[in-house]
Amino acid sequence: MELKELLSRVRSGELAVEEAEIMLGGQEYEDIGCAKIDFHRSARRGFGEVIFCQGKKTEHLVHIYETFRDRGVNVMGTRATPEQFEAVKRAVPQAVYDEVSRVLKYEPAPVEKKGLVAVCTGGTADIPVAEEAAQTAEFHGSQVLRVFDVGVAGIHRLFSRIEDIRKANCIVAVAGMEGALGGVITGLVDKPVIAVPTSIGYGASFQGVAPLLSMLNSCAEGMAVVNIDNGFGAGYMGAQINRLILAGNE
Amino acid sequence: MELKELLSRVRSGELAVEEAEIMLGGQEYEDIGCAKIDFHRSARRGFGEVIFCQGKKTEHLVHIYETFRDRGVNVMGTRATPEQFEAVKRAVPQAVYDEVSRVLKYEPAPVEKKGLVAVCTGGTADIPVAEEAAQTAEFHGSQVLRVFDVGVAGIHRLFSRIEDIRKANCIVAVAGMEGALGGVITGLVDKPVIAVPTSIGYGASFQGVAPLLSMLNSCAEGMAVVNIDNGFGAGYMGAQINRLILAGNE
Amino acid sequence: MELKELLSRVRSGELAVEEAEIMLGGQEYEDIGCAKIDFHRSARRGFGEVIFCQGKKTEHLVHIYETFRDRGVNVMGTRATPEQFEAVKRAVPQAVYDEVSRVLKYEPAPVEKKGLVAVCTGGTADIPVAEEAAQTAEFHGSQVLRVFDVGVAGIHRLFSRIEDIRKANCIVAVAGMEGALGGVITGLVDKPVIAVPTSIGYGASFQGVAPLLSMLNSCAEGMAVVNIDNGFGAGYMGAQINRLILAGNE
Amino acid sequence: MELKELLSRVRSGELAVEEAEIMLGGQEYEDIGCAKIDFHRSARRGFGEVIFCQGKKTEHLVHIYETFRDRGVNVMGTRATPEQFEAVKRAVPQAVYDEVSRVLKYEPAPVEKKGLVAVCTGGTADIPVAEEAAQTAEFHGSQVLRVFDVGVAGIHRLFSRIEDIRKANCIVAVAGMEGALGGVITGLVDKPVIAVPTSIGYGASFQGVAPLLSMLNSCAEGMAVVNIDNGFGAGYMGAQINRLILAGNE
Amino acid sequence: MELKELLSRVRSGELAVEEAEIMLGGQEYEDIGCAKIDFHRSARRGFGEVIFCQGKKTEHLVHIYETFRDRGVNVMGTRATPEQFEAVKRAVPQAVYDEVSRVLKYEPAPVEKKGLVAVCTGGTADIPVAEEAAQTAEFHGSQVLRVFDVGVAGIHRLFSRIEDIRKANCIVAVAGMEGALGGVITGLVDKPVIAVPTSIGYGASFQGVAPLLSMLNSCAEGMAVVNIDNGFGAGYMGAQINRLILAGNE
Amino acid sequence: MELKELLSRVRSGELAVEEAEIMLGGQEYEDIGCAKIDFHRSARRGFGEVIFCQGKKTEHLVHIYETFRDRGVNVMGTRATPEQFEAVKRAVPQAVYDEVSRVLKYEPAPVEKKGLVAVCTGGTADIPVAEEAAQTAEFHGSQVLRVFDVGVAGIHRLFSRIEDIRKANCIVAVAGMEGALGGVITGLVDKPVIAVPTSIGYGASFQGVAPLLSMLNSCAEGMAVVNIDNGFGAGYMGAQINRLILAGNE
Amino acid sequence: MELKELLSRVRSGELAVEEAEIMLGGQEYEDIGCAKIDFHRSARRGFGEVIFCQGKKTEHLVHIYETFRDRGVNVMGTRATPEQFEAVKRAVPQAVYDEVSRVLKYEPAPVEKKGLVAVCTGGTADIPVAEEAAQTAEFHGSQVLRVFDVGVAGIHRLFSRIEDIRKANCIVAVAGMEGALGGVITGLVDKPVIAVPTSIGYGASFQGVAPLLSMLNSCAEGMAVVNIDNGFGAGYMGAQINRLILAGNE
Amino acid sequence: MELKELLSRVRSGELAVEEAEIMLGGQEYEDIGCAKIDFHRSARRGFGEVIFCQGKKTEHLVHIYETFRDRGVNVMGTRATPEQFEAVKRAVPQAVYDEVSRVLKYEPAPVEKKGLVAVCTGGTADIPVAEEAAQTAEFHGSQVLRVFDVGVAGIHRLFSRIEDIRKANCIVAVAGMEGALGGVITGLVDKPVIAVPTSIGYGASFQGVAPLLSMLNSCAEGMAVVNIDNGFGAGYMGAQINRLILAGNE
Repeated sequence: MELKELLSRVRSGELAVEEAEIMLGGQEYEDIGCAKIDFHRSARRGFGEVIFCQGKKTEHLVHIYETFRDRGVNVMGTRATPEQFEAVKRAVPQAVYDEVSRVLKYEPAPVEKKGLVAVCTGGTADIPVAEEAAQTAEFHGSQVLRVFDVGVAGIHRLFSRIEDIRKANCIVAVAGMEGALGGVITGLVDKPVIAVPTSIGYGASFQGVAPLLSMLNSCAEGMAVVNIDNGFGAGYMGAQINRLILAGNE
Repeated sequence: MELKELLSRVRSGELAVEEAEIMLGGQEYEDIGCAKIDFHRSARRGFGEVIFCQGKKTEHLVHIYETFRDRGVNVMGTRATPEQFEAVKRAVPQAVYDEVSRVLKYEPAPVEKKGLVAVCTGGTADIPVAEEAAQTAEFHGSQVLRVFDVGVAGIHRLFSRIEDIRKANCIVAVAGMEGALGGVITGLVDKPVIAVPTSIGYGASFQGVAPLLSMLNSCAEGMAVVNIDNGFGAGYMGAQINRLILAGNE
Repeated sequence: MELKELLSRVRSGELAVEEAEIMLGGQEYEDIGCAKIDFHRSARRGFGEVIFCQGKKTEHLVHIYETFRDRGVNVMGTRATPEQFEAVKRAVPQAVYDEVSRVLKYEPAPVEKKGLVAVCTGGTADIPVAEEAAQTAEFHGSQVLRVFDVGVAGIHRLFSRIEDIRKANCIVAVAGMEGALGGVITGLVDKPVIAVPTSIGYGASFQGVAPLLSMLNSCAEGMAVVNIDNGFGAGYMGAQINRLILAGNE
Repeated sequence: MELKELLSRVRSGELAVEEAEIMLGGQEYEDIGCAKIDFHRSARRGFGEVIFCQGKKTEHLVHIYETFRDRGVNVMGTRATPEQFEAVKRAVPQAVYDEVSRVLKYEPAPVEKKGLVAVCTGGTADIPVAEEAAQTAEFHGSQVLRVFDVGVAGIHRLFSRIEDIRKANCIVAVAGMEGALGGVITGLVDKPVIAVPTSIGYGASFQGVAPLLSMLNSCAEGMAVVNIDNGFGAGYMGAQINRLILAGNE
Repeated sequence: MELKELLSRVRSGELAVEEAEIMLGGQEYEDIGCAKIDFHRSARRGFGEVIFCQGKKTEHLVHIYETFRDRGVNVMGTRATPEQFEAVKRAVPQAVYDEVSRVLKYEPAPVEKKGLVAVCTGGTADIPVAEEAAQTAEFHGSQVLRVFDVGVAGIHRLFSRIEDIRKANCIVAVAGMEGALGGVITGLVDKPVIAVPTSIGYGASFQGVAPLLSMLNSCAEGMAVVNIDNGFGAGYMGAQINRLILAGNE
Repeated sequence: MELKELLSRVRSGELAVEEAEIMLGGQEYEDIGCAKIDFHRSARRGFGEVIFCQGKKTEHLVHIYETFRDRGVNVMGTRATPEQFEAVKRAVPQAVYDEVSRVLKYEPAPVEKKGLVAVCTGGTADIPVAEEAAQTAEFHGSQVLRVFDVGVAGIHRLFSRIEDIRKANCIVAVAGMEGALGGVITGLVDKPVIAVPTSIGYGASFQGVAPLLSMLNSCAEGMAVVNIDNGFGAGYMGAQINRLILAGNE
Repeated sequence: MELKELLSRVRSGELAVEEAEIMLGGQEYEDIGCAKIDFHRSARRGFGEVIFCQGKKTEHLVHIYETFRDRGVNVMGTRATPEQFEAVKRAVPQAVYDEVSRVLKYEPAPVEKKGLVAVCTGGTADIPVAEEAAQTAEFHGSQVLRVFDVGVAGIHRLFSRIEDIRKANCIVAVAGMEGALGGVITGLVDKPVIAVPTSIGYGASFQGVAPLLSMLNSCAEGMAVVNIDNGFGAGYMGAQINRLILAGNE
Repeated sequence: MELKELLSRVRSGELAVEEAEIMLGGQEYEDIGCAKIDFHRSARRGFGEVIFCQGKKTEHLVHIYETFRDRGVNVMGTRATPEQFEAVKRAVPQAVYDEVSRVLKYEPAPVEKKGLVAVCTGGTADIPVAEEAAQTAEFHGSQVLRVFDVGVAGIHRLFSRIEDIRKANCIVAVAGMEGALGGVITGLVDKPVIAVPTSIGYGASFQGVAPLLSMLNSCAEGMAVVNIDNGFGAGYMGAQINRLILAGNE
């Protein structure tokens, strides 16, 4: 529908203002002073909201969590520091923190976890990014299979787990250094793979450029890549695909 | 299942050799001299095979298409030159060629096209890459909605089409230069977006590096990126996701 | 005005559909088959349209020029080849081509040229890009002062012309290799400077990266930069600023 | 006028020494020991001077502010640390400091703010750079409209404000990560846009390279780019253009 | 042997499960909670294991060393901090630490050192990386000749030692800055050279990119390169080649 | 031995001039006008010489081959064009050319091929580089096992051949795009691996940078890397290691 | 002398207009239509002028050479094509062309060649750049010692010539690939070395970036670097230093 | 003289061992435990030695200075920390330290300063690098003219000093950010210019890459470049050229 037509229909009453607003991308967010939060989206989608904690002032973060607490809406913070957690916990004692992934969750109304997303890593050093992906997928309603430390320098470890990985609806492959994990899994499993390069490594890894390029250049069919260390982005997209497949199943 | 256990089960007869082979990633391919082709996979999945034509010798390519013709299996070549097409056509007259996408198809047993993948471009110069994505998705059983020339410098053109794009199960966003299209669509539609940077542009585009970085850095939730100009990869993954969602629906 | 409010006013009739459309970025373009052209914008702004000819099929380009000819609207093509010009000329004999800048103009209703934009180059090799800028500025209603070959390795040549440059409302500084021209002029003249790095040079020029970085790092106050070789972009912005200043004057 | 002619006129008395000096870029600055300050320029232009505080020794900075205080001339420091502010404040109690933008102002003779420059950001993390731009524009006599957190991943937020942005004479668009804000605004508003990439982000943002390239490659007409995080440069140029337009109006 | 054939032989009893497992890359590792360690490999090869200490939690590292102590197996940690050493030493008093190379060894059953690997450096600043290489080679059963500070800016120092270097079975050449050492040695000695670029240097060294590129581009015959600062990798490969040559000799 | 001591021994007659010369890297080469060739080295080592044909004038190349023909010494040219071959063939009819690897050999006294070097590729497009490596190894006295098209996107194909690869004394792993082959093989085989990145690929492969970085960052033990497309360098080093191991065996 | 003082002295007659002009960088050039040539500088310095031929239109180049011919002034063109030479030769038969360096000279009044500049190369492929340097130095009055093909992979060849190189007043070191030649020579000779990286090489040479970085990072004392392939710049500076030393000697 | 001939002459007694050693680059250095110092070179050249202090252990540095003190030989340390100075001062009270350049000198036998080297900077932030250059030149016997803060954004300040700069035998031009100073000076003065890019700046300066590229690409004749921030290298080469010119004069 052309913009003009849309507006004409609003004018004539054929189209409700609210519907037109959504067609134009409008979303209602609430301004709580230090942040604009879209509680309606949470309600509509059935999940909570996600807050990028890095660089946020502690008092602002506490205020955000208090608002969620007051409304009983789930919230998940990424890249939270232990200090941020301590402050949030004082205000919202039910908040829980995972040191490895630096995820800070408050889930008064946990969503049911369904379907399956597999989260794999090349090494143990990639686990923090993988955990961010896994917790993000869980927060958005997916069950998660964790398969860590199955990098290609010891490919038999991957083989031992490949049967399980094949059961997932979507796979998140997290790897630093040479970053070959994504391509190898994609070659073995006919499911969409979201690859996450990590900044683990040194020298010619260039803070994750090496695995990023490696993943982009894989000739395996069915893999796409997110930003270096972006466990959240991969976990979100994994859960989104899983959810769409499940929705199809229902 | 550990490797040792798998082998023990094969030994004891609990597990058939063929099943074990598939668990270990084994796929039967046929060596036709100049190429190894996995006709069994085509049979199993119901689609044909894809051939990367660039750099292939014409006589080899003709031989490949003849083999597919003889078996009545679908085949789609990417990055084929008009010269390659002419030679293939002499041997396989039903082969069809699309100049824009450089796709060279032979489809004796066309697959049914179901579900929907939307393929969008920022400009008209991105169309060749987008067409490769679109034809790949169609070849793998998806219907495709083409929404071209809706780049962010004239954002209203995107708005006119956003309603239709929202109906797709997966979106392929193709853009060169600033590459902002993917992030904008992802912000407007709650479906997985596969972004394809193109090498269109000049100067500081650096043959697609600018849109690649732009897409990797988008903070929109639900987008992943494939290699520069990799329309095939995006189209394949789009169709794969679409198919999985439909399979859920059946 | 919030989106909701805008739509509510359309609904109530307070706001006309057309006005709302413009507020939302809507522009009427006409689809002439191979291109979408915004003749209304031309009418509204008083200038013609600009076509990026590079990579366009000759038959499409000819059709575009014919459409402009039929409506008597000005059109300027950038990066046109001599072959494209020959074809266009056969259909639109009044079209004129400048070999240096590769600009292909058809101006049935030339605009009055007012105010002044200065276009300067470091060397003679930068002239093609500078001419594109100059002709773009002229096409959009500016007078242009050309000051070529005044690079900093022979700074006295710039000094001889600085008095004239100071009379312009905006300066376009085009330079390759070390790219110092922009910063030097900005230090001497209190007018906005649009710097254009060019891909002229060899070795560590890296096709224009050296002057691009040089220009971005200048500590002179009042300079901004466009893409490598983007004479059009600089000329457009120069004319835009010139026009706004003149509009103020009227 | 050629250099020789200029000198000949000086010789013959046709041209005053002072005029010739200005033609040759001569400006009188005063050496206050640790810095050379052009108080005459301040007087001539009606604004104060700007000091880049980063890396300056505290005692030198204090001395500079004392000199301005003694002469009653406005001064604005950029990238000042809280420690520098504390020291300056002890000597010049009227100095004010903005923690967000790190701007340290002393304005005994505030200039009148006229016209309008809009300063927009993609996210909240871009605000420090945007504030530097905004305060710079205000210091140089512009009114400033701040429109923060309107990035393209939630494009409707930009739409709600676009009407206001269109009223400005010049727009400063500040964005990190994918950096698409500049191009989108430029496509919506027919005023010059100065784009500022920021180093906000992680991974493939490469400290601002991603938005820098994105902005340089935008095909929107009427945008130019300054260095990563260079809020000052954009604010200065925005105010300069605003001032020239107003001057035209007077 | 094709995968199918291998499995068929397992099925028929022609091939033992254990043999098949090794053919497929299977290795038995032991999961000690915080790490998976392949004690069998150590037994099989006669060397201990190597642990990358950087980033490992101290308690985990202590547990790993305790496990090795309990089994009497050699272990060598790379990139260990003095703090990690202190903690390990409390649990395993026989552990020894080398401050320069940051290697943390526990060798209850030292291997015999045979053959010769030469480890050379361009400057004194390259010694930490070189020592890591030297100690790695020793840990894996090689004698090591250390030839430090023989960079090409004072080529006569290299000449004084070239006779000795020629006696080694393999040479590790460690150099930062211009990185020319590898090529010069390779030109003088007909033995395989493993070159290690180091991140020593400043400015256009780009943390080791300059010597990395220099080494990759050498036209000397018989040199290959490992990652920047990867002393371990070069030492391992040097010892591996040395061992294979000695095995030939036995 | 210090330089001074060496010279003193020459002075006193303890050390022959010829021995001292060799100690100082001196090699006798012969100047045949357009090239300096070290026939003595060929005699001493038992292999012929290698000529880099790219960019050489045809008449010079013909003269070089004639000189080798006249002396009956083996010579192998790399990167020869078909045109160069035609010209050489007219003068030296026994010269043979391999189109794939562009190697141009004249071997009047073929060396015995002993031991084994395995040359593996990820894809079929890597074969030209692999063949250069293989022929170089053969020219220098190694038997070669070719294992092509066993890239990690179809890892089972590698598994089918891994038993054979393990028999080689040294492995050359050639791969473009993601470049993971080297690391996977190194993890499966305890022999030195020389990895060769190729410029095969497109987009973010950056002419071989992606596989180069991938290979440098592999955490598999026992791999080093040569320049992009440097099949010759890898083949030479493979043969050198193979020869040293065999020499040990004799 | 401050600018104001200078102008005051011109005013008072203390300083001649011509002298003041030179102090301000003024040079008289002549505009011959397609170029501005500084014949006075040639006269003053005793050398001819240098023309960068690349990209110049043939008719313009011919006109330039005719002008020099008419005045009897020496001229040297760099990067001239054989076609340009043919055209120039028809007009100026005494013009001579060197195919290797692409230098096109017309020297009616050859300057005396004095002192000594050594020009060395790493390989034979670097000779074109080295010849440009050598001919430039000769054109500007230096004798030149050519020492080609003495790269560090066969360091003894450099040793054979080092005695001669030491006699030069300045050394130009030209090298591609690893680029180590400059540092090695600088370590052996206590004279200023101008290093020229060349774009010779492939793969990770990145068109000369590898030798450029290598040369910039050398820790040898007394070397500086010019642009990739800039034989002219190095030859000019070598001759300039040689001339200044000779002038001291006279 | 060929290597063979040299050795033959040594053998026959025609050439002394010591002379031959020097011809082969031999220099006598003394190993004082933590460093190898060439006291003979100091004696021969008449200057002291230079020590790169960065990263050196304090006890080693103190020992080095004590050795120089005991022998009464001049020594200059670069990049020394205040802590290193404090420690050295306790052992060698006459040592002096300059905080700006971080140079730590002990000069028991100061050399006479002759001739002139000019050291110029673009801004005040470049002064530390410039001072390192200046003090290095003085240490090696040159008088130094310091001309700081004459960058091209205020070109008239450079003009005021150009007359003085022209008197130097060699010019060191130090600049960060856009790095245009070197090219402008080279265009104004016919003396060799050594340009030093500095890492001063932010954003797209990329720690000195911007001025490095700018300087390498200057088309001014008579300039060469050293590594980013390498004040020592430029000062050494400046003094070397100055000394050679003076030697000519004597």
